[in-house]
Amino acid sequence: MQAVKTIKFLKEPTSTAWVEQAIAHLDTILLDHSHCERKAAGVALNLMFRYPSSAKLVRSLTAIAQEELEHFEQVNQWLDRRGVALAPLSAPPYGAGLSSQIRRQEPHRMLDSLLVSALIEARSHERLGLLAQHCPDAELAQFYRGLMASEARHYGAYWTLAATYFDPDTVNRRLAELAEVESALLATLHPEPRIHS
Amino acid sequence: MQAVKTIKFLKEPTSTAWVEQAIAHLDTILLDHSHCERKAAGVALNLMFRYPSSAKLVRSLTAIAQEELEHFEQVNQWLDRRGVALAPLSAPPYGAGLSSQIRRQEPHRMLDSLLVSALIEARSHERLGLLAQHCPDAELAQFYRGLMASEARHYGAYWTLAATYFDPDTVNRRLAELAEVESALLATLHPEPRIHS
Ligand SMILES: [Fe+2]
Ligand SMILES: [Fe+2]
Ligand SMILES: [Fe+2]
Ligand SMILES: [Fe+2]
Repeated sequence: MQAVKTIKFLKEPTSTAWVEQAIAHLDTILLDHSHCERKAAGVALNLMFRYPSSAKLVRSLTAIAQEELEHFEQVNQWLDRRGVALAPLSAPPYGAGLSSQIRRQEPHRMLDSLLVSALIEARSHERLGLLAQHCPDAELAQFYRGLMASEARHYGAYWTLAATYFDPDTVNRRLAELAEVESALLATLHPEPRIHS
Repeated sequence: MQAVKTIKFLKEPTSTAWVEQAIAHLDTILLDHSHCERKAAGVALNLMFRYPSSAKLVRSLTAIAQEELEHFEQVNQWLDRRGVALAPLSAPPYGAGLSSQIRRQEPHRMLDSLLVSALIEARSHERLGLLAQHCPDAELAQFYRGLMASEARHYGAYWTLAATYFDPDTVNRRLAELAEVESALLATLHPEPRIHS
């Protein structure tokens, strides 16, 4: 399997071990993906609730929440088509690990929340790209390819919001720190197949 | 001012005092309406998080959440156009009063959550209709008229979900109880102009 190219923002590329695990458990990956899209919509909405006066943030996250709900619906259609029932799935340590890095005090909280979301979106973009590349079902691969582009826009949008409300040096320094943590969280493959295992 | 016709589900129609208060404070009503649309999207999403395996609920609430986000965006465009800045607003007692009626134990919790949402949507439908009827700005009145139809579909959708997961007698009995509380909460006009004051 060829080496994976590093996406801007991400410190380390995804391991080939993850790709093999994911391709071997596509139905579970699809079900987890459905949860990820719903969670992504939830995160965007929560930030809109927390910063209701920040017009640019509200506008940009409304669009993201709408797109995530559309993805959620599309992934659920794929589940339906493959006969996989909607069901809860245990979350891998990734999300909680990243959330624990969000400082509690404003304005740090806002900066960290935006950058954590940017990193998750960047990683989703990278991994959906890998699924597109390696998925044996050509139509599903095509679906992943379509989503990739949105996730790239999403990480750009979160980064742009961070750069709107904070100065570039602060943003870049904190992004580098969080990117270290993000890659460290994925350094050991989680035994259960997940989008962020 | 003419008497208000009662919408199906609602125990008592809105008072003319509310209509007068709302029309006299349209900018505040629009700002509160923006919060209501975002909250409506949040409630739909939360229910999807709570019942991730209920396919019909998930499908139906995904569509509602998407529409509420669209409404949120449209109301925000109206705010922008009228030069009203996004800002937090204190919530009237209505939402918390209704939430307190949701029993904590399943399956009651699911039933009550669906019916409380049905009632809020029915009331929104009624009140947006009153705004459409009495708003002095013809274009804004037209906007309210457009939203009314969606809110009617939403209360129908929440009711249908309740009737999907519970037997009709249970649904109708509990709906009647909650409708009493809902009307009682609005019997005294809240001093601050709100969609649900
Ligand atoms: Fe997405
Ligand atoms: Fe995304
Ligand atoms: Fe709405
Ligand atoms: Fe609604």
